[in-house]
Amino acid sequence: MSAEEQGAHGRPSRRNLLGWGGAGLVLGAGAGAATALALDDGDAKAAPAAAVPFHGAHQAGIATPVQDRLHFAAFDVTTSERADLVVLLKEWTKAAARMTAGHAVGEGAFGADEAPPDDTGEAYGLSPARLTLTFGVGPSLFTRFGLEDQRPDALEELPSFPGDHLDKARGGGDLCVQACADDPQVAVHAIRNLARIGFGSVAIRWSQLGFGKTSSTTPGAETPRNLFGFKDGTNNIAGGETAALDQHVWVPEKDGPAWLAGGSYLVARRIRMNIEVWDRTSLREQEDVFGRTKRTGAPAGKLAEHDPVSPRAMLPTAHVRLARPAAHGGHRILRRGYSFTDGTDGLGRLDAGLFFLAYQRDPRTGFIPVQRELARHDALNEYIQHVGSALFAIPPGVRDAHDWWGRALFTAPAKD
Amino acid sequence: MSAEEQGAHGRPSRRNLLGWGGAGLVLGAGAGAATALALDDGDAKAAPAAAVPFHGAHQAGIATPVQDRLHFAAFDVTTSERADLVVLLKEWTKAAARMTAGHAVGEGAFGADEAPPDDTGEAYGLSPARLTLTFGVGPSLFTRFGLEDQRPDALEELPSFPGDHLDKARGGGDLCVQACADDPQVAVHAIRNLARIGFGSVAIRWSQLGFGKTSSTTPGAETPRNLFGFKDGTNNIAGGETAALDQHVWVPEKDGPAWLAGGSYLVARRIRMNIEVWDRTSLREQEDVFGRTKRTGAPAGKLAEHDPVSPRAMLPTAHVRLARPAAHGGHRILRRGYSFTDGTDGLGRLDAGLFFLAYQRDPRTGFIPVQRELARHDALNEYIQHVGSALFAIPPGVRDAHDWWGRALFTAPAKD
Repeated sequence: MSAEEQGAHGRPSRRNLLGWGGAGLVLGAGAGAATALALDDGDAKAAPAAAVPFHGAHQAGIATPVQDRLHFAAFDVTTSERADLVVLLKEWTKAAARMTAGHAVGEGAFGADEAPPDDTGEAYGLSPARLTLTFGVGPSLFTRFGLEDQRPDALEELPSFPGDHLDKARGGGDLCVQACADDPQVAVHAIRNLARIGFGSVAIRWSQLGFGKTSSTTPGAETPRNLFGFKDGTNNIAGGETAALDQHVWVPEKDGPAWLAGGSYLVARRIRMNIEVWDRTSLREQEDVFGRTKRTGAPAGKLAEHDPVSPRAMLPTAHVRLARPAAHGGHRILRRGYSFTDGTDGLGRLDAGLFFLAYQRDPRTGFIPVQRELARHDALNEYIQHVGSALFAIPPGVRDAHDWWGRALFTAPAKD
Repeated sequence: MSAEEQGAHGRPSRRNLLGWGGAGLVLGAGAGAATALALDDGDAKAAPAAAVPFHGAHQAGIATPVQDRLHFAAFDVTTSERADLVVLLKEWTKAAARMTAGHAVGEGAFGADEAPPDDTGEAYGLSPARLTLTFGVGPSLFTRFGLEDQRPDALEELPSFPGDHLDKARGGGDLCVQACADDPQVAVHAIRNLARIGFGSVAIRWSQLGFGKTSSTTPGAETPRNLFGFKDGTNNIAGGETAALDQHVWVPEKDGPAWLAGGSYLVARRIRMNIEVWDRTSLREQEDVFGRTKRTGAPAGKLAEHDPVSPRAMLPTAHVRLARPAAHGGHRILRRGYSFTDGTDGLGRLDAGLFFLAYQRDPRTGFIPVQRELARHDALNEYIQHVGSALFAIPPGVRDAHDWWGRALFTAPAKD
């Protein structure tokens, strides 16, 4: 154990052993904590203090059991030099591997006295908190850096949907990083350090904090409630459903392009909820709008949350009826959305809602047709407004310590 | 157990027993959870899932061990009828007592089908998470409702300090409620339901979410780090230090007015941190600015966080040196600040910082003289900006089920 891993009183502290020690210790402690916390955690199999492996065939943060908190950032690339961007992506990958393991960005934690610290320090002493960092590239990146030929056909700006009230400042982005963790300080620390490392090459375009998960990817777990007080997206794809993930989430090699095989597409929508109007609506109206019982989350006419949906038991405009996979050729998406509250608007209303995040194999068969239908007919539209929108391609996992975010893209041979 | 406390599968769930069942169960489960969580919790004696008693001589949420998350709201009173305001305060108190015990606002949880639900529902199934709701009144309230004579001399708008860049929309307020909990969904639910109940009588003027506590009120606990990566406010008043609380936090009867005896004063300051500038400053400069070692939190020249401060070991402009009680006649304040990150500003910088909350017996001997000194000389001023400000008087505790927030104030005899 190095000097910087000593506790405040000059001896190794429990917190340091948990958070900034070796990976073996981290996992050991995490497994112990899991049992105790399961009482209060929808994803009972998750170990809140543990580290999630960074390397693998797919990026972590997609099929990973959903963590409690989110900090999401979209970046503009401000350098015009491809080489600078590649250097940054290598540095980011190295930092991400360290932070997700519960380490400081730099090996000496704070580095030399004369230099800015290698790590900003606010997560020093905290556990890894199951931090995952998931990296993506937006359509706008492909107009520069010689990447024109590499843009997948599916990666184009989402179409306008009826009722959209999009704020350009809350949408788009050349790159994105989704930081999820069970401790918000750990997620915020990660995004802030990536932004710091990227100074001069990238700048944050917009970012979003999520304080409560609204989805579960653990089979049989109760779905967390959104700010309308409802369980929504009950029939999510579970992290262990390999066949469903292969069919609906991961981009197969045959879909192309080659650099995206094993990756995915991420749709991000900032959905403002008209909380004050909703709160003055009757329980019956609320349940009719969703097509679910508020108390149990059961679909209309059923008893339990996970009972199958009976479309005929609900109104034609019910949210669940319109959004169900059976109405869309069986295509499914994996949801990882979070509730947000960003203070109050100029009219004294809470600026609150759902930051919708969904992973899918192809947005043209995933989000887009479902949203076309919802935007036209969903009874929920009276109470929500889509105010931010972005689409990103999510490369496959970083395979080992030599691999880096975007390597396959930046080393892909030019077409023809 | 009533029907609404059944779990999703029609049987009583563990989550419901924890959160929405009887108080005995709540406390029992909480005590068990505390042991397991202490590993990762600065306030080792706190039981994260348990309920904090609502009734008492002082309001909870001041000397209570600091919870992990905050939602703070300031309200304008929009009704001009004193009677409406009194009715609201009674309703608020009843709802606060229920929510802090882990119950829904209404006894039937969601109420009748034909009416808007008595509770918005997003905390249904969650534990009380040590929720506290702390109520205060601002100077502006005393210009109306026949309260002119009741304003304490100490309750006037804070003076301007050099360097203040206050946004009026982020300051002031007739009333305030501080919601602290170990689960942000529980804190947000509480503020949202109070705002809902208050519709027509009050409106949220501004609100602030805090995602990470920066203070501890537990003796010997490590101080959490702020977004500069430092431990600050190490020598806080602990929740059990009865003599220090009596001397520095609670308003004694002899200070007056009578309705405030056993209460306190709360200073709230939104302090934006220039994160990007700070992150490019050398470790030595950062440590000189605070007068503390970044790694351990030890004061300059010392080894451990809780070692006594040696002013001569640090620069005359060091934050710790200027702020220490010994430089201010021994007057102390109780800090309960939280880190915030509210997305990104128009220049791509994180809108992040410290939401400073401090309780004291009298702001004229507490916050004001310390801030006068800091505003003039603190080396930290290069990296921070005060952008929001408010002062509230915090009435004493609600004594029992017949008492209500502000009762002593609204029933005080006029001062002829």
